[in-house]
Formats: sequence, C-alpha cells, structure tokens
Amino acid sequence: MPEYSISKFNKVVRGPKRATYDIQTINNILDDTFLCHIGYVWQGKSIVIPTAYGRKNDKIYIHGSLKNRMMISLLEVGEASISVTHLDGLILARSAFHHSANYRSATIFGKVRIVEEANEKMEALACILNHMVAGHWDNVRQPNDKEFNATLVLEIRIETASAKIRAEGVNDEPEDLEKPFWAGVVPIKQVALDPVVDDNLIEGVDIPEAVERYVERNR
Amino acid sequence: MPEYSISKFNKVVRGPKRATYDIQTINNILDDTFLCHIGYVWQGKSIVIPTAYGRKNDKIYIHGSLKNRMMISLLEVGEASISVTHLDGLILARSAFHHSANYRSATIFGKVRIVEEANEKMEALACILNHMVAGHWDNVRQPNDKEFNATLVLEIRIETASAKIRAEGVNDEPEDLEKPFWAGVVPIKQVALDPVVDDNLIEGVDIPEAVERYVERNR
Repeated sequence: MPEYSISKFNKVVRGPKRATYDIQTINNILDDTFLCHIGYVWQGKSIVIPTAYGRKNDKIYIHGSLKNRMMISLLEVGEASISVTHLDGLILARSAFHHSANYRSATIFGKVRIVEEANEKMEALACILNHMVAGHWDNVRQPNDKEFNATLVLEIRIETASAKIRAEGVNDEPEDLEKPFWAGVVPIKQVALDPVVDDNLIEGVDIPEAVERYVERNR
Repeated sequence: MPEYSISKFNKVVRGPKRATYDIQTINNILDDTFLCHIGYVWQGKSIVIPTAYGRKNDKIYIHGSLKNRMMISLLEVGEASISVTHLDGLILARSAFHHSANYRSATIFGKVRIVEEANEKMEALACILNHMVAGHWDNVRQPNDKEFNATLVLEIRIETASAKIRAEGVNDEPEDLEKPFWAGVVPIKQVALDPVVDDNLIEGVDIPEAVERYVERNR
C-alpha cells in the first residue's frame, strides 16, 4: 500500500510500533473530522490555529476572509504543518505511569498555495463544506460574486505525513496486576445531538438528507 | 476581571467581537479538556503535536519520555504556542458563505522550562493526571523511582493568551431568510461512554468515585 516517505520531520521516533505512514490510514484520519490545528512560523514564533478544512487526494483546503492574518501569513510562509487528532478513550491504568489515551492522530507537512482559478476555487469551497457534512453543498445557497471574491482559499499539498494510533486496553506492569488498584478504559466519542432548527425557517422546508445522515452517523 | 495584555501575537484580528483576553474564561477553556496541540519551531519548520496537559494557575505542564523529540526540542527552543479547542456545534446556514461552527478556542504563548525539583515534578505529574480525571491521582499506584526518573516534565508558563468563542445560531443574510433552504445548528459534544473494566482486575476492586464522577459529568 502506498506510503509517505520518511524524513526527519515526519519520522515517528517515540512509540514507532504505533506509527504508520500508510496514505489510506492517514486519509481516513483526515476524513473523520473537519477540524484541524495548523501551525506555521510567524516572526520566528510558532502559531497554532484551529480551522475547518476539506481534503481531496493529497490536497487540504482551508478558507477564510481575505484579511485573515493566519491565512495571509500562511501564504507568505509557504509551508505549514497540520495536526488532526481523534480522542478515542482514556486509559486509566493501575499505575500513574501507564496512564494514556486511545487516539488516532495524523501529522501533515505541506506546501501552501493560493487557489485563485474560479472553478478550482469553487470546487475547493464545496470540498470544505462537504467535508463537514457530506453532500450538503448541493443543499445550500451557493456563494455570490461578492462572497466568492471576499473569500481566500488556500491549498496545502501534503508533502509528507505520519500517523500514530493507539487502540488497545491498559498496559500495566506485571507486578501491578495483583494489586488492589482499579484499571479500565473510558471510551470517548464526539457525538452529534438532534439538530436545532433555525427559528426563521419558512414553512415546508425539510431537513436535508445529508444532515440527517450526518447526525445518524455521529450519534 | 484580570486579562492578558494584548500583543501582536495574541491579538484577535478577525472577529474581535468573539475574542476575549479574560484569564478566567481562558482557564475555563483549558480546564474543560486535557488534550492540547502544541506548536514549536524546529529547524525552521513549525511542528504541531497533540499531547495531554495539566494546568495550575498560569502554568501548563506536559510530560513525556526523556527521549521524546518533541519534548527535547521544545525545551531547546524555550517557547511554544498551545491551542485548545472545543467543537460545540455545526452552523448549517442557508448560504454556503455563512456556514460556521460553534466553538471555544484558546491560544496560549508561553515560556518552556524543565521541572526537575522532585516535589515540584511529582506535583506536576499529579496535576496532569488530575486534569484528565479530577482527583484520580490518589487512586493509582504512584511513580516509582525508575518511572519518575524516566519522565521528562516541562512547564509552559503562560505569557499571553487569547480566546475566541462562538456560541450562537445561524447568521444568514436577511434576503436569504425567505428562501426555501434549510438552516439549523447541529450541537456537537464529546462524551464518555461506560468504562470498560480491565480483564485482569482482581476481585473486589470497585470503580473509583473520581472515575464515576468523570463519566457522569461527560455523558
């Protein structure tokens, strides 16, 4: 299966057994949420910002206002790292030392480019919205010229990446197993609750199937 | 109420109405999870890593193996930014343009220092574990010398910080309100499921109250 090549930046040094460079595995982690943390170097400092994104093949799209400092700086800098993390559980061991978490985490390094060509830009906007709720782009009033022109879209092409996954139970020291300490896993999940319909909705507008499907899948 | 002073690094430029520098508000965001994303500059690149943390006053503690590259680099670099984000809902507007999310997000800039003094280090380890599950440190087998010495603990003292909070409904254009597009909010929540007790637990060990309380609060 295709993998990202290993460099000093994406190489997982600690816990290499939990590491993977498999592109499909990394894409699955990226596709399981729409919120990432982007880091870039600005005036010598690292800045980390949460933002929504979409993914298509090896490209991650983000968008913001034309005046968004993070977006403009990111474009100037030309490269970024992205972290996407799913927390899946608390590992409550007998020993403090073996406390941990179950998680799926991807770390991406990529080149930043502005998306200006109109078709490509509109597709990127659709990609971002559909990454939040699959198929919902077709249900909404699409951007008018003013909105379209006021939006900055950036592409971050994945150059290299890695992922770490922990998906197991408690790993205590053998000598602790006989001791009267509790141990277990508390599964953690991000869930969607029932949609709260906008007060101003005109009569006769049903909830789109795409939204229903999203809620059903994330219950 | 005490606030962080505003610098070019923590100043919220976009959406200033959603910004706050209030220390208590920022601390509440930090205390509502134990998973942060830390960014630092390594060999000219930004690296973003998810990690567990604890907070006490204006100090954030993280820990890892003595050989952890992220931890060692962070210590060498001496400063870091931290992002903590809670996703609270999807804002599904009539228009693509007004899609958004409800969230609480804190951005921290701080100085990094190693914690070596034994009492301070043990307290930092307790702080990290108790930040995950309040009060659980007293229920576990505490670190022995080998574990204690193999653990690197870093303190990140908050120098400046800001937060952004969106907690409202859909904001569509007035002219879209009459159109037959659906709009609403899908609340999102991170929840704890029932604990899965470790298979090897000896008989007669009850689940600690601290864990029960955690699960109850996060249902």
